[in-house]
Amino acid sequence: MAIRALVFDTFGTLVDWRSGVAREAEQRLPGIDGGAFADAWRARYQPSMEAVRSGRRPFADLDTLQAESLDALLVEFGHADAAAEVKRDLVLAWHRLDAWPEVPAAMAALRQKFVLAPLSNGHVRLIVALARRNGLVFDAVLGAEFSRDYKPKPALYRDAVTALGYAAAEILMVAAHSNDLAAAAGEGLSTAHIARPRENGPAGGETGPAVPVTYAASDLADLARQLGG
Amino acid sequence: MAIRALVFDTFGTLVDWRSGVAREAEQRLPGIDGGAFADAWRARYQPSMEAVRSGRRPFADLDTLQAESLDALLVEFGHADAAAEVKRDLVLAWHRLDAWPEVPAAMAALRQKFVLAPLSNGHVRLIVALARRNGLVFDAVLGAEFSRDYKPKPALYRDAVTALGYAAAEILMVAAHSNDLAAAAGEGLSTAHIARPRENGPAGGETGPAVPVTYAASDLADLARQLGG
Repeated sequence: MAIRALVFDTFGTLVDWRSGVAREAEQRLPGIDGGAFADAWRARYQPSMEAVRSGRRPFADLDTLQAESLDALLVEFGHADAAAEVKRDLVLAWHRLDAWPEVPAAMAALRQKFVLAPLSNGHVRLIVALARRNGLVFDAVLGAEFSRDYKPKPALYRDAVTALGYAAAEILMVAAHSNDLAAAAGEGLSTAHIARPRENGPAGGETGPAVPVTYAASDLADLARQLGG
Repeated sequence: MAIRALVFDTFGTLVDWRSGVAREAEQRLPGIDGGAFADAWRARYQPSMEAVRSGRRPFADLDTLQAESLDALLVEFGHADAAAEVKRDLVLAWHRLDAWPEVPAAMAALRQKFVLAPLSNGHVRLIVALARRNGLVFDAVLGAEFSRDYKPKPALYRDAVTALGYAAAEILMVAAHSNDLAAAAGEGLSTAHIARPRENGPAGGETGPAVPVTYAASDLADLARQLGG
């Protein structure tokens, strides 16, 4: 079945969260190891979303969750006295991330042929900021805020299929994370793995899929080539 | 307070639904008065949404509601025997509407300065089809499917404010219909009325706002000029 639409994980797959957060943390928190700070913040990401996924709390967006994680993180890194405006600005560092180098041109090529939408745990405003910063054009913004829940809950993939109006197999979930692709495949979507060996800095990143996928690509330009874009 | 984002009514404000539906009806239903058919279909639009607004049925998208209205309409116009594929194709006529002539260039100019999103009763796939057909680029798709309800219910305007992350007054609701603008103003949004004197063909259309608004414009290009776009 031909692919008609691509839906994208964002953090790690389209944008380099670690370098951006590290850079801004080092600018605002004297003496800090920015990479370690970014890693420690990201480590709190999944547990913070779990309260929403499990239904223990109503949907709260990533800015809210990142702000909550930040307080404990600042204690851990010896900056418990950070001013409120520094904290607000650090949360917004997640809105100022750079795309991986090949992404803008590859996305523009893909949009000639396919409907494109983020299927991310980022909320609408965060996605709009990242897209505008990096010159990415989407046809719609799906994902966490559209579904009021977080991946890998099935609702996000199902709502994307409903919203795009294609058969699930005509929609290609694009991600650098095998667990995201496994969840998408469980809802019948086609899947594409993007290698991001530098996602986590010295700790690496997924160099290939750990689950069966429809496409495995070395980067987004490679995927565009494989799709004949 | 400065405007940061524009949200748009779509049917009537950005696209000419009557001419497009009339044209396709005349092609597919021999001997029909396309304009009268389009008007009669549109007349069933508000009542069909009311079942969702009132909570009598769960959210159903416009394709579903238009398909339901179509059966009675075909009886009324002497085409009760229309084939299933003709019916499906007529529903999709709403996906193939043309923008009013000044809209594509005005939207491109506005997007240089503002975040843009439809705030329409159209669902995601319908909006994506209209946007792609007419070369319109939005930053996100808000409205009925995002909120699982229909305008003028307050949830749609409130959800748009939350999603865009600006103060309500920084968001400008743009519509050719005073009732839509009144509902938006009730949630604190700024408002812009677009005159569409030909929206309903010989029956005319709103030539100016019937309620107090922040901006009144003769068309979208005029609004862009007033906003310094």
